[in-house]
Amino acid sequence: MKRLSSLLFALLLCATGFAQQALWGAAPVVSPEIHSDNTVTFRLKAPKAAKVQVTGDFLPTQKMKTPFGEFDGPGVADLVKGEGDVWEYTTTEALKPELYSYSFLVDDLKITDPSNVYQIRDVASVTNVFIIGGDRADLYRVNKVPHGTVSKIWYHSDALGLDRRLTVYTPAGYETSGKKYPVFYLLHGMGGDENAWSELGRTAQIMDNLIAQGKAEPMIVVMTNGNASQEAAPGESSLGFAQPSMNLPRTMEGSFETAFPEVVSFIDKTYRTKADKHHRAIAGLSMGGFHSLHISKQNPDMFDYVGLFSAAIMPNQGVKSAIYDDFEAKLKTQFDKKPALYWIAIGNKDFLYEANTAYRKLLDEKGYKYTYYETGEGHIWKNWRIYLTEFAPQLFK
Amino acid sequence: MKRLSSLLFALLLCATGFAQQALWGAAPVVSPEIHSDNTVTFRLKAPKAAKVQVTGDFLPTQKMKTPFGEFDGPGVADLVKGEGDVWEYTTTEALKPELYSYSFLVDDLKITDPSNVYQIRDVASVTNVFIIGGDRADLYRVNKVPHGTVSKIWYHSDALGLDRRLTVYTPAGYETSGKKYPVFYLLHGMGGDENAWSELGRTAQIMDNLIAQGKAEPMIVVMTNGNASQEAAPGESSLGFAQPSMNLPRTMEGSFETAFPEVVSFIDKTYRTKADKHHRAIAGLSMGGFHSLHISKQNPDMFDYVGLFSAAIMPNQGVKSAIYDDFEAKLKTQFDKKPALYWIAIGNKDFLYEANTAYRKLLDEKGYKYTYYETGEGHIWKNWRIYLTEFAPQLFK
Repeated sequence: MKRLSSLLFALLLCATGFAQQALWGAAPVVSPEIHSDNTVTFRLKAPKAAKVQVTGDFLPTQKMKTPFGEFDGPGVADLVKGEGDVWEYTTTEALKPELYSYSFLVDDLKITDPSNVYQIRDVASVTNVFIIGGDRADLYRVNKVPHGTVSKIWYHSDALGLDRRLTVYTPAGYETSGKKYPVFYLLHGMGGDENAWSELGRTAQIMDNLIAQGKAEPMIVVMTNGNASQEAAPGESSLGFAQPSMNLPRTMEGSFETAFPEVVSFIDKTYRTKADKHHRAIAGLSMGGFHSLHISKQNPDMFDYVGLFSAAIMPNQGVKSAIYDDFEAKLKTQFDKKPALYWIAIGNKDFLYEANTAYRKLLDEKGYKYTYYETGEGHIWKNWRIYLTEFAPQLFK
Repeated sequence: MKRLSSLLFALLLCATGFAQQALWGAAPVVSPEIHSDNTVTFRLKAPKAAKVQVTGDFLPTQKMKTPFGEFDGPGVADLVKGEGDVWEYTTTEALKPELYSYSFLVDDLKITDPSNVYQIRDVASVTNVFIIGGDRADLYRVNKVPHGTVSKIWYHSDALGLDRRLTVYTPAGYETSGKKYPVFYLLHGMGGDENAWSELGRTAQIMDNLIAQGKAEPMIVVMTNGNASQEAAPGESSLGFAQPSMNLPRTMEGSFETAFPEVVSFIDKTYRTKADKHHRAIAGLSMGGFHSLHISKQNPDMFDYVGLFSAAIMPNQGVKSAIYDDFEAKLKTQFDKKPALYWIAIGNKDFLYEANTAYRKLLDEKGYKYTYYETGEGHIWKNWRIYLTEFAPQLFK
């Protein structure tokens, strides 16, 4: 009879063919290696490459020339070829706690790091990720705390004529507590989908940790797909493995916002919810902030908590939909009912900063009460994770 | 006020930096392109590469030299450089319906296809995937049928002293039907985890499609993590983004099998189940087949349906655990109770073929009834998806 070690050996040989190649192809390198002082070393074994670089959001931005002018782009650093044809780069400074993304450039060809299986898709780009722990970034990690359940569940939209996919987080204990919970609807930006907040936004980890620390109430978090033409995220719909696109039809023309109460009905029917205004929140990033603004204004008795994260504020965006009509009158109705929290957050380098400033001026002029939270930097997931960690603790208190 | 198009433009410019680079870096190429005749073209823009190849399971295998001898490895085909520095390869034949994996080799460096965001991790390798539809492979696609819910849920194991993660599929309608459902426990192989069957095995798609076609009963499918030392799949546990390994402790030494009734109790407590032997099935691939054999034998009143998929049959594997003791006596007890189905499947090139033949010989000698299903090829996910599509329709009838 075979012994364990021989089974393991045989499995390694026979499993997928790919595993074999990884084994025999090259001496394994560790990349990224996070050192105890929070400097990070990146490595790639590439015997025939003439140039290897790393690009990522842990490097200072640099000017990038495009056909449309100069913009801030991600920084690039050179790896140096060393022993065994392994190229290497170590950051010159310790990295601050954060979830970082990076890619390699091998003779200018952008690739993912073959030594790092942890990757995130953002629209049509896949990049590697790593986390430097500490401070707020510890909220992005899976820690030894009670974990909620993350479900991919489908509902039928009569209004959109589609079965559609949702990501739903239920807090630890939901299944057996018998209790009812408040619900937080969390919306993505343009090019995103129902996977964006759980993957790029680390929602389950953030909620698990905030709840375990007693900083946020146990709540259900519902992450919708805000592209009214889509059943589901790329790869998860009947379109199959079609290439994702940022330029989708039916994203900011009223369909999703108009149909939104269907989602709330479905959730209230399917989960044990506290089904009233005082126990509902809605927030979104960028396009999702635009959606949240209009959905909450259109349904003034539905949400007591509203969050606009780097919101694409465009009161009159040149598209006709009844949901965009009578903007100021509907806003007045919403604020006359005194929402428990109307929270606006943006980075001071965001291209939507000016639009948000103009919107705040409007609210100020009308005497509508809101809370403002400003960070550095621009229209990036780093900020949206921060906003989630700041917004969620203020809900349902 | 900004218009939609300018928002889109600004978002494209400012979003992640990575998206920008994808936009300005290279003219986009389509890869893979599946033609109407089911030939497939692979493309890569790589101006500075001297050699570009594609390797994958759609190509005939070829002999591969390793330090341990010659083995069948995945085939390799050369791409040819054409206009605009785009390298290209088109399959010489139409591909049969199947889910295929592939990678590029750029000057011998194995990379994923930057034009294809669809990737699957198998242990420590990430490869691109595509599906050629038709026949059985249509079961692997997301079709316009009612979709079940896929949940990542945690349970506490007293026996293993860990909170542990499960993937649970509940059939379409579960949430609101009020009905009770049978439960199918589906176990992964060495190096796998609770994500393996849903990602590599396409379990949710297969179950959705089989149930919609009336070929399988609506059932709950529970995909466990069979590595007793792990909380969860790599990247999903408190170990963070540590590199996955095939050589894990506590996989086939009795701990997981002994603790298994805890999982059944948790599921029966948490879901609306038909909590009896006639409504429980267990099956697994490779190591999971070994686990299924021992768990079902140890608990002869727990499972009426048992599936061994390319099972790692090792009645005496040199590890001490009470669960492995009295093998033949326990097997006799199990078969005296006449399981509704004891199903053994393996590929005729599997390195475990001989061990499975010996096990079948033992069952034959004892007069224990089982059903045998043999396919071509070896120890590969293609076979395990086939076995799932064959096994699930036989359950709970």
